[in-house]
Amino acid sequence: MLPTVSASASSSFAPLIPSPSHTPSLLVGKGNSLSFPSSSKISRWQPHFSPLRSPLSMRPAAAVSIEKETMEAERPDTFLRESETGEVRARFEKMIRDAQDSVCQALEAVDKVGKFKEDVWSRPGGGGGISRVLQDGAVFEKAGVNVSVVYGVMPPEAYRAARSASTDQKPGPIPFFAAGISSVLHPKNPFAPTLHFNYRYFETDAPKDTPGAPRQWWFGGGTDLTPAYIFEDDVKHFHSTQKKACDKFDPTFYPRFKQWCDDYFYIKHRGERRGLGGIFFDDLNDYDQEMLLAFATECANSVIPAYVPIVERRKDMPFTEQQKAWQQLRRGRYVEFNLVYDRGTTFGLKTGGRIESILVSLPLSARWEYDHKPEEGSEEWKLLDACINPKEWL
Amino acid sequence: MLPTVSASASSSFAPLIPSPSHTPSLLVGKGNSLSFPSSSKISRWQPHFSPLRSPLSMRPAAAVSIEKETMEAERPDTFLRESETGEVRARFEKMIRDAQDSVCQALEAVDKVGKFKEDVWSRPGGGGGISRVLQDGAVFEKAGVNVSVVYGVMPPEAYRAARSASTDQKPGPIPFFAAGISSVLHPKNPFAPTLHFNYRYFETDAPKDTPGAPRQWWFGGGTDLTPAYIFEDDVKHFHSTQKKACDKFDPTFYPRFKQWCDDYFYIKHRGERRGLGGIFFDDLNDYDQEMLLAFATECANSVIPAYVPIVERRKDMPFTEQQKAWQQLRRGRYVEFNLVYDRGTTFGLKTGGRIESILVSLPLSARWEYDHKPEEGSEEWKLLDACINPKEWL
Repeated sequence: MLPTVSASASSSFAPLIPSPSHTPSLLVGKGNSLSFPSSSKISRWQPHFSPLRSPLSMRPAAAVSIEKETMEAERPDTFLRESETGEVRARFEKMIRDAQDSVCQALEAVDKVGKFKEDVWSRPGGGGGISRVLQDGAVFEKAGVNVSVVYGVMPPEAYRAARSASTDQKPGPIPFFAAGISSVLHPKNPFAPTLHFNYRYFETDAPKDTPGAPRQWWFGGGTDLTPAYIFEDDVKHFHSTQKKACDKFDPTFYPRFKQWCDDYFYIKHRGERRGLGGIFFDDLNDYDQEMLLAFATECANSVIPAYVPIVERRKDMPFTEQQKAWQQLRRGRYVEFNLVYDRGTTFGLKTGGRIESILVSLPLSARWEYDHKPEEGSEEWKLLDACINPKEWL
Repeated sequence: MLPTVSASASSSFAPLIPSPSHTPSLLVGKGNSLSFPSSSKISRWQPHFSPLRSPLSMRPAAAVSIEKETMEAERPDTFLRESETGEVRARFEKMIRDAQDSVCQALEAVDKVGKFKEDVWSRPGGGGGISRVLQDGAVFEKAGVNVSVVYGVMPPEAYRAARSASTDQKPGPIPFFAAGISSVLHPKNPFAPTLHFNYRYFETDAPKDTPGAPRQWWFGGGTDLTPAYIFEDDVKHFHSTQKKACDKFDPTFYPRFKQWCDDYFYIKHRGERRGLGGIFFDDLNDYDQEMLLAFATECANSVIPAYVPIVERRKDMPFTEQQKAWQQLRRGRYVEFNLVYDRGTTFGLKTGGRIESILVSLPLSARWEYDHKPEEGSEEWKLLDACINPKEWL
């Protein structure tokens, strides 16, 4: 038992963390100013479908809330509704669950000591997720690999905001489906870089009360590298793996998504990116749907070949206390980006997503020194320079 | 020399941190969409007058920006304009600078090893500040004590938002003055609590182009305690010192400002307060101005008697690795509150305040464990319980 919350939280599961005292007002069926009409089959508009990180690019015009999750003892074969097998959403769910399995397996093989702990959860309105965390292993300080599937309704303002091409007014909330895999890997050794990746698929239903309004779908995602020290070979290997995955589909993808990545992971108040980039894309639907599904699959499958050889090379390198402290300072920047700017994180925190899943992206530890300035020409300076002035690595 | 920024930053001082690449667009005189009309004597609207923490309660309706600061070799006798001696603002500046001196002196006496490092800065449009930081001392991990004085103009929307009683439309930007002291003290020993205090005074000029529009002034501030472990005697001593300061002026102050403090330092996504509270007030002007100046002075003078005896009692207590880790987890919550919710911090980051001064409030180090749950009845559980369900300590 955890400390009692002052509000009468009546959720049906034993909470893994103290239920926030504001939870009751966010439950479906309890009327409050954040409400959108709900049906028995669909949950609230939930723009943060991936519990780990940045899933959607849209910024809903209205305040939203989501249902409280329920912990499950076993993982189901699918989080989809029964009627939906065979569709793109089912194939996407299979892809991300396979990717979760193979990434976790590969990371355990690298770590040798640490094992992933699994938490399975579902929401009454449909969907659910599997959170896997390896903490305090031999190689990884903290590694989270999460998948989730969410059914919800989005307010019409969000639908318009997301698909800005459409200008027709839609009267009711739009049912949507979202699924994604999301992961942040923080190794212990300061020479082994942090990795983040996230791939997501999004669909809206055709609104039933607005004949002719289109059904929409799009893909988003990316993989990016955040080292504390630059090893050019590592960064080149990482970027060239991303480029190879992109080039199989469209020669414009890598340069475009590399730039997008540099733009997105920008810590504005520092004038720095959080790391050395990779690829990032969102709202992608102006290509064949099958092609984009294959592209997202290729990207997810490229995570291990892009990352594991780097970690293997760096995980046992000797390092000084100063080098560890510099890694911790860069982890502080990671925290700043995620808590201040990352759309998925900030929105998830505001709307009542599963906190432990959202914040597993934060490092096990981080550091803030007043007015720290690396010496000109030092290895730390070089990293900072590359974060301020993004480079072409290939 | 630090890494070159890609934009052509041409500020006239050697930056202590890499100039953010967006800096040039925030300089006075460079037209951009964030601009408000500026005059030669006053700088931009700057709602974050205190470089360390939460200075103002207003949420301006419009986006704003501030001038880049210049580092100074020496601290001036006053940051006020020459004509202003003798007014309340001059007495308030003297009060906060005296308080900065006496607090720093008392903390150095406690620490014995660590010394405060001082940075003095000014803004071309008027005002400036003194940041003092003691880092990695014998007792304190990180202690920041900052004062600042700011002249600016606020957009009329912010003036209305701040003083909501007034409904008359004001055509032009409103010149304002703000001064404050702001401090966060993070000790090393997990049994010695973190302290935060902040006292501030705000004035608007009577708008010259709107005859009859009122000159406004108000006070804000507070002192609050954030331990990782509860020692009831410590918490009672802390709260009773706050109450004693309040009771000298108005018996309603302590209960009202204690509640306000519990409400303000709320980490909504956790359903927890960051600590065990104290007092917090804002927009205070419905009392005699001399009385409130004396009250703010009394509060600032109560910081040392409220805090130092507690640190003296706890600073040398033996502790385990687990107790240190719990302190670090609570420091993680401190980071979450400051980066996600604290008005001064979040607004300062968005508007281009002095980053190193703003973020000195963050602890030297912090920790995030996945799904950490203290055992029921443990000392860690009791602290968490008191953060979820605020208590009456007196």
